[in-house]
Amino acid sequence: MIIDKYNKRAKKINSLLCVGLDADFAKIPKRFLKKKFPQFEFNKWIIEETHEYASAYKPNSAFYEARGDKGIKELKMTMDYLIKNYPDIFTILDAKRGDIGNTNNGYIDSIFDWLGFDAMTLHPYFGSESLKPFLNRSDKVSIILCKSSNPGSGELQDLKSGRKMIWQILAQKVIKEWNKNNNCMLMVGATYPKEMKKIREIAGDMTFLVPGIGAQGGDLKATLKAGLNSKGLGLIINSSRGIMFSKNPKIEAQKLQNEIRKYKKFSTFG
Amino acid sequence: MIIDKYNKRAKKINSLLCVGLDADFAKIPKRFLKKKFPQFEFNKWIIEETHEYASAYKPNSAFYEARGDKGIKELKMTMDYLIKNYPDIFTILDAKRGDIGNTNNGYIDSIFDWLGFDAMTLHPYFGSESLKPFLNRSDKVSIILCKSSNPGSGELQDLKSGRKMIWQILAQKVIKEWNKNNNCMLMVGATYPKEMKKIREIAGDMTFLVPGIGAQGGDLKATLKAGLNSKGLGLIINSSRGIMFSKNPKIEAQKLQNEIRKYKKFSTFG
Repeated sequence: MIIDKYNKRAKKINSLLCVGLDADFAKIPKRFLKKKFPQFEFNKWIIEETHEYASAYKPNSAFYEARGDKGIKELKMTMDYLIKNYPDIFTILDAKRGDIGNTNNGYIDSIFDWLGFDAMTLHPYFGSESLKPFLNRSDKVSIILCKSSNPGSGELQDLKSGRKMIWQILAQKVIKEWNKNNNCMLMVGATYPKEMKKIREIAGDMTFLVPGIGAQGGDLKATLKAGLNSKGLGLIINSSRGIMFSKNPKIEAQKLQNEIRKYKKFSTFG
Repeated sequence: MIIDKYNKRAKKINSLLCVGLDADFAKIPKRFLKKKFPQFEFNKWIIEETHEYASAYKPNSAFYEARGDKGIKELKMTMDYLIKNYPDIFTILDAKRGDIGNTNNGYIDSIFDWLGFDAMTLHPYFGSESLKPFLNRSDKVSIILCKSSNPGSGELQDLKSGRKMIWQILAQKVIKEWNKNNNCMLMVGATYPKEMKKIREIAGDMTFLVPGIGAQGGDLKATLKAGLNSKGLGLIINSSRGIMFSKNPKIEAQKLQNEIRKYKKFSTFG
């Protein structure tokens, strides 16, 4: 099962770390800007510095699309490099897509089949009927945006319907109905550990993609306590800016991996 | 104001027709496949056949992304062609984007500034705080996905919170709070005329992008009756497959424009 790819890697290197490959062109170190493919060369360097600590990589599509067809080409080069050199690392495109029915096939062709990602993030607003082309791909992971990390995420997500908020109702639907092919994950922001805890209570061992650690203010300890599953797994802890644009990405990745290990122990046995 | 661009064109040629440029590679007539830039050449032909009836063009990004960087390049060529030859026609990229805060700048760089679209469609699930980079662009239109045309759109959108459904609450928010720069539109599917009527009751003269006519089963007469604003405008009626992949796109576009005129008269004075 595709879900196992992440778990295998996470167990093998004892890491729940996902390195965000958000190669923001305005922030790339100058030495890469001289090269023919600056975003790719920067990513390659980040991958070489961080791969021993990473169970997943997650580029955000916006930073590549910003450069038009050139950026898309360098995203493809990045994926070719990852697949060739580190095929056991789980790959996510943070694309936040979601169209109606067959129109989604364009995104599937591009993101799953051409670029070769294992997973992509999906907006739930159109419902599961619209997302079927993704959900039916049992060889790929659909990561449903459930409780987003931004400060204003509650505007729609926290509206109450009956006794539950929209993010709760959605989590329940994904867990009980959308996940027929055992290929769904949920995105839950690290900035909302209480909400994460509630979702974990009903989610069994389902994996959560967790943005929001670091620059956005999410607390690592609280996240692990709220979100780890019964196997001490179930979380993909993403850090983008905090690693990529630090002085020493290797050391930052190692540091975060070690912190995760420390708090994980605490959470699992504490 | 950017909103006026569409209205001016719509009045000038007496048409509420938007031609969807969904250049599905699998369906493009064979004679274009031999060319170096098949999606662009096909679009160019469709534009030449239909421009006199069109107040807007709306490519769906999925069909271009499906071909990777090549498709993006041909989308750019299509936009360059449109801007050069028909600068008064309103352009929408149906991209259904929506990320957190500054990450959205990548989509703005790409879709508004590089490709040059007047408008793009946006998922509302993360709330207005996340969409600010779009909403702050008073020179561009944010089209908020409100009630989508797919049969299963109710799964989240029809959940009741208090006395109202999510799509109603969202419509109200966009109309009263998100539209501070007078640059918002709502997407409302032609397959839900009752819902459209309710939104029109609170929307003043705000414009709706309306997919779902034709192949999806939306009824044109009911749509115009429910959705026209006090000025006999306020609707962007999209048809994609029904025009692009018909035997004669010119005749189909003219036919639809005439039907819109007929029912518009009926709705406005009937």
